Amino acid sequence: MQIFHNEQHHLHRGRHEMYRGRLVPCHEVPDRLEHVLAELKRRPVGPVMAPPEPADLDAVLAQIHSPRYLHFIEHAWDEWVALDPAHAELDALPSVWPGRAFRTDVLPHNFAARMGLFSFDAGTPLTAGSWPAARGGAACAVTAARAVAAATRAASAASAAAGSQPASAFVLTRPPGHHAGPDFFGGYCFLNNAALAAQVLRNAGLQRVAVLDVDYHHGNGTQSIFYERADVLTVSIHGDPLTEYPFFLGHADERGAGEGEGFNLNLPLPRGTGFAKWRAALRQGVAEVQAFGAQALVVALGVDTFEGDPISGFGLKSADYGQIGRDLAALGLPTVIVFEGGYAVAEVGVNVVNVLEGFSAGG
Amino acid sequence: MQIFHNEQHHLHRGRHEMYRGRLVPCHEVPDRLEHVLAELKRRPVGPVMAPPEPADLDAVLAQIHSPRYLHFIEHAWDEWVALDPAHAELDALPSVWPGRAFRTDVLPHNFAARMGLFSFDAGTPLTAGSWPAARGGAACAVTAARAVAAATRAASAASAAAGSQPASAFVLTRPPGHHAGPDFFGGYCFLNNAALAAQVLRNAGLQRVAVLDVDYHHGNGTQSIFYERADVLTVSIHGDPLTEYPFFLGHADERGAGEGEGFNLNLPLPRGTGFAKWRAALRQGVAEVQAFGAQALVVALGVDTFEGDPISGFGLKSADYGQIGRDLAALGLPTVIVFEGGYAVAEVGVNVVNVLEGFSAGG
Repeated sequence: MQIFHNEQHHLHRGRHEMYRGRLVPCHEVPDRLEHVLAELKRRPVGPVMAPPEPADLDAVLAQIHSPRYLHFIEHAWDEWVALDPAHAELDALPSVWPGRAFRTDVLPHNFAARMGLFSFDAGTPLTAGSWPAARGGAACAVTAARAVAAATRAASAASAAAGSQPASAFVLTRPPGHHAGPDFFGGYCFLNNAALAAQVLRNAGLQRVAVLDVDYHHGNGTQSIFYERADVLTVSIHGDPLTEYPFFLGHADERGAGEGEGFNLNLPLPRGTGFAKWRAALRQGVAEVQAFGAQALVVALGVDTFEGDPISGFGLKSADYGQIGRDLAALGLPTVIVFEGGYAVAEVGVNVVNVLEGFSAGG
Repeated sequence: MQIFHNEQHHLHRGRHEMYRGRLVPCHEVPDRLEHVLAELKRRPVGPVMAPPEPADLDAVLAQIHSPRYLHFIEHAWDEWVALDPAHAELDALPSVWPGRAFRTDVLPHNFAARMGLFSFDAGTPLTAGSWPAARGGAACAVTAARAVAAATRAASAASAAAGSQPASAFVLTRPPGHHAGPDFFGGYCFLNNAALAAQVLRNAGLQRVAVLDVDYHHGNGTQSIFYERADVLTVSIHGDPLTEYPFFLGHADERGAGEGEGFNLNLPLPRGTGFAKWRAALRQGVAEVQAFGAQALVVALGVDTFEGDPISGFGLKSADYGQIGRDLAALGLPTVIVFEGGYAVAEVGVNVVNVLEGFSAGG
């Protein structure tokens, strides 16, 4: 398994987030990724590389995110600091947003207004390095998906011997991506790396691509991006949005719309769910991917399902993550695994590498 | 002119608001009202009374706000403190909200989620006293409108002598109301006092009621409440939402919808507008009220159009407010004036009473 490492990730280092009504130090910190990297040195599962940015990255970004959103995010920090030099020492957070009966067709000139228009929470500080870090992650996701597609083509041309493993890659990046929608950031996410990977697999000629999101939090951004498409199946296993972030999406009755009707599956589980019940949901998700006839898989891998996660509520143990990797590998599909959430910083590395080891061994 | 004073106003005393990306002390403070009260003692324009709550207040509230919103606001503080006793010392602010492509039909159990579902900014702290203060203001607005309606009926029955002034009242309350919509708070507002007054005038048999909003900020809540109704005309003169709060509503092309088509008029003006141009917009608004054939008027009176206002951008001077009062009185309509914004605390009293004096003298 090739590992694509976003070396710009550390440029995104938020100071504070609004959490339960107060400003607290950010949960989504650079150390999360460093712990995975350190664990990958102890237990290598494949070569780690930091790929150059693809020349056509902007064109791929524009397949997933709206032009006005991309323009805003790219220039937001400079706008923020231009308002007041003192802002250089202060992350930007939204504080006003378009509620029901408000308009979003007219783009305000005011910066604070656009911050709110393009977001859905005040937990995602926009910092000096947010854009280069997010862009570096997008580059890794695109490159990883292309590598998997190329290896799949090569294996197919060579009529790969039975029993050889399909191509796979791991995108080691932060900030995460699965909460970022067509034109909004939030949930610590700016660019949707998993959606970009899925789109690149589609671009490469794989007709049906599945995104399986195992992060504790519903992959609302990914769902929104593909909700009306039949060529990308989205499946998410997550804490019930009635009580768990992001709250306003992720219910079981959301099955897709228009041409995408039937191509979204949400498997919400109650807070406190342990591995046995969680794995039953995973089996259901895997069966849906199989029934869809997926030719490639993207896994949005959050490990905030861990029992020790400070902002989540499932009861998975570190040893369970190896089984998750084996269950995913059993699909036998070309696979891009993208790093998403997981905030028990010290354990994130072990849990992620357990998945990757299980995946590499399994199938 | 009778003045209805909300003696519970001081129970709403927010500590901090999110403003331009940081937590700052609240602009909307109890002293604002106390300055008006003090100025009214120096320059009385009518009797000041603190009315008891009408027995049917809940029924009137339900004509303007949705049941699930009212239920939430009434119980929000108790919910917040039940989550953590330490919250008693911390105002509640929203930090996550339903963006585009999110659902609002399913009400989350999570408190933070409902805070965001029912709001549009993080500038409106919900405190221990927010509900009783807002409810006290609503009671004043309802009582004031009933007093004006009753006096109007009595004068009509007596075939009032030509030249006698129509009935009028001033609602001296805070928190303000004009940003509060059918099911959202924000802009320092929880219950829409001006909308309640307009509804009560309608309930009393006045067939066409106009709301004229002269606050610096667009009366988005009032507009949303009456947008599809032909019996209440809404007119707002305000800073252009392209650059001014509340940003996402208040453009000139919003003229109402459905049966309400043609019964909303927005008069946005650029930052820096002085009194001459502002008064031209007022004349246009007044002409619209006349053309509508209004039988009663509600004025949403913000004095944040004042040149010294710390969060606004017009150039009105204290002396201009007397002229505004005379221009409003010239409509010759039964009138309820409701106190809204104005954050140059020391000058708020002078500016408001200048309007009231001008109104009483004019016509």
